[in-house]
Amino acid sequence: MKALTFDGTAPAVRDVPTPEPAPNEALVRISLAGICNTDLEIVRGYMGFAGTLGHEMVGVVASHPDPAMVGKRVTSEINLACGACDRCAAGLGRHCATRSVMGILNKDGCFAEHVTLPPDNLHLVPDSVSDEAAVFTEPLAAAYEIVEQLTFPAGTKALVLGDGKLGLLVTFVLAAEGLDVTLCGHHPDKLALVRDVADVCETAPDRLFDVVVEATGSPAGLSEALSRVVPRGTIVLKSTFHGAVELDTAQLVIDELTIVGSRCGPFVPALSAIEHDRIDPTLLLTRTFPMSEGVRALEAAAAPGSLKILLKP
Amino acid sequence: MKALTFDGTAPAVRDVPTPEPAPNEALVRISLAGICNTDLEIVRGYMGFAGTLGHEMVGVVASHPDPAMVGKRVTSEINLACGACDRCAAGLGRHCATRSVMGILNKDGCFAEHVTLPPDNLHLVPDSVSDEAAVFTEPLAAAYEIVEQLTFPAGTKALVLGDGKLGLLVTFVLAAEGLDVTLCGHHPDKLALVRDVADVCETAPDRLFDVVVEATGSPAGLSEALSRVVPRGTIVLKSTFHGAVELDTAQLVIDELTIVGSRCGPFVPALSAIEHDRIDPTLLLTRTFPMSEGVRALEAAAAPGSLKILLKP
Repeated sequence: MKALTFDGTAPAVRDVPTPEPAPNEALVRISLAGICNTDLEIVRGYMGFAGTLGHEMVGVVASHPDPAMVGKRVTSEINLACGACDRCAAGLGRHCATRSVMGILNKDGCFAEHVTLPPDNLHLVPDSVSDEAAVFTEPLAAAYEIVEQLTFPAGTKALVLGDGKLGLLVTFVLAAEGLDVTLCGHHPDKLALVRDVADVCETAPDRLFDVVVEATGSPAGLSEALSRVVPRGTIVLKSTFHGAVELDTAQLVIDELTIVGSRCGPFVPALSAIEHDRIDPTLLLTRTFPMSEGVRALEAAAAPGSLKILLKP
Repeated sequence: MKALTFDGTAPAVRDVPTPEPAPNEALVRISLAGICNTDLEIVRGYMGFAGTLGHEMVGVVASHPDPAMVGKRVTSEINLACGACDRCAAGLGRHCATRSVMGILNKDGCFAEHVTLPPDNLHLVPDSVSDEAAVFTEPLAAAYEIVEQLTFPAGTKALVLGDGKLGLLVTFVLAAEGLDVTLCGHHPDKLALVRDVADVCETAPDRLFDVVVEATGSPAGLSEALSRVVPRGTIVLKSTFHGAVELDTAQLVIDELTIVGSRCGPFVPALSAIEHDRIDPTLLLTRTFPMSEGVRALEAAAAPGSLKILLKP
């Protein structure tokens, strides 16, 4: 089958063997896959990954230990946990020490015609949800992770830094959860997407926000977040990138700030928000490429004006 | 009066005018004052402070708007809040935007014969508490701030990094609060002080501790804390110093860690712990210098084997 792969040097569409599911695995035929900034970071060296890229997908079950599942539309969680360790027992499979992660860590991804997955990772897509919406479940779940980790009183003043895909989805989620949200970014057309639910700005005022979500994807984002948050406030760190950040820890201590790292999130509220029209992630769709043009698709995803780029096998 | 001052260049004992209390202020005659690592950082440029140093003290009220307070033994909180802003109204005077801080920010400190203070900052010292113990109230309160900010289930595995004064006091507090504490440091004589209440080590194992308190006073402490904490764990940052720290934020995000800055704390539980013999901070006493030898006292406080150095006017 054709797959968009990374060999440690450059991404390329290559012919790879169709994966064979183990007896306890499902095989999913990919309908649509989404390019995430993490994919762009991986081809810059982040995580040291090599293999088939991709971790955002919707597809149809081709084989499954439960024959009743064959033919169902599904999306999939990306962390493949051992299921046996203390963390898995505590419901923290996303933090299993021996996990693999689809398209990110020791597991081929979904920029391909087929992918094998543990049945427990699959979530049925409701009939009313289109493939174009369902492919956003994973990044929308990452946005929901913030409200899974932290509880905010109604009216909490929140600032989201970065009007990229993740910043927009976080804005939708925090607004849907009743926070008073401001999105800060530099792209008027992207900011316009959230005008119904949030304030927008190019530069946010200092020390005004109870919570600041850093979703710029840039090493400078954390410093900006530090200057925008009130004393005793919370910074949620969403960006992952290759490299280190300089941090003035004295301000962290003096203002008794909290920084919370936030990664993958729960699929159930994300799918529910799409199904019940609380959030329409398809507003973020920029373009769909055939899988054979995967390298061009990655370039398109990296272009400044771009939001979500999809791949169709 | 004699005072240990810093003019932006070098510390020196100088003759300065005895401060005149305003009608709404108290004047306190200092009995003992303690040297904190923050004082050592200030004479390296931290906070850009100039004036009389010092913020840990016990003394006797010399004048007070309430005449019944004259002659009482007191210790004092260090943040002088406006009392009128939203943060003060919310009980967060320690984070008042226009606050001054004794010996640290726009307010002369207590390395002197007298200091003026707002009456609300003063706490009566119980008769059974010696001056040598009471002078530790402020740093012990800073240790109690951790359990004011965060709630830990009994048996939480805690690692304290740094066997200096603050690390030792934090170890005492966390152990008294029922946590399973390990203190990591490089001074066997200092580690020995906590052997009754905590485990000790020179190098701690990786990814084992639910909470890691960074009290090394060194820029390398945060990275060490990051490697010791479990996924989803908490790092409490106590060290303040002049300069920036390099931080690998990807680990923060991937492991969904929380970093909490922690500064000044509540005096009431600190005084209570001393009064009821739950914690004996005088174990940390190294030596008392006369105020006239203040510069030598600062040097002694900076010496590797040193713990608490006191000044007596």
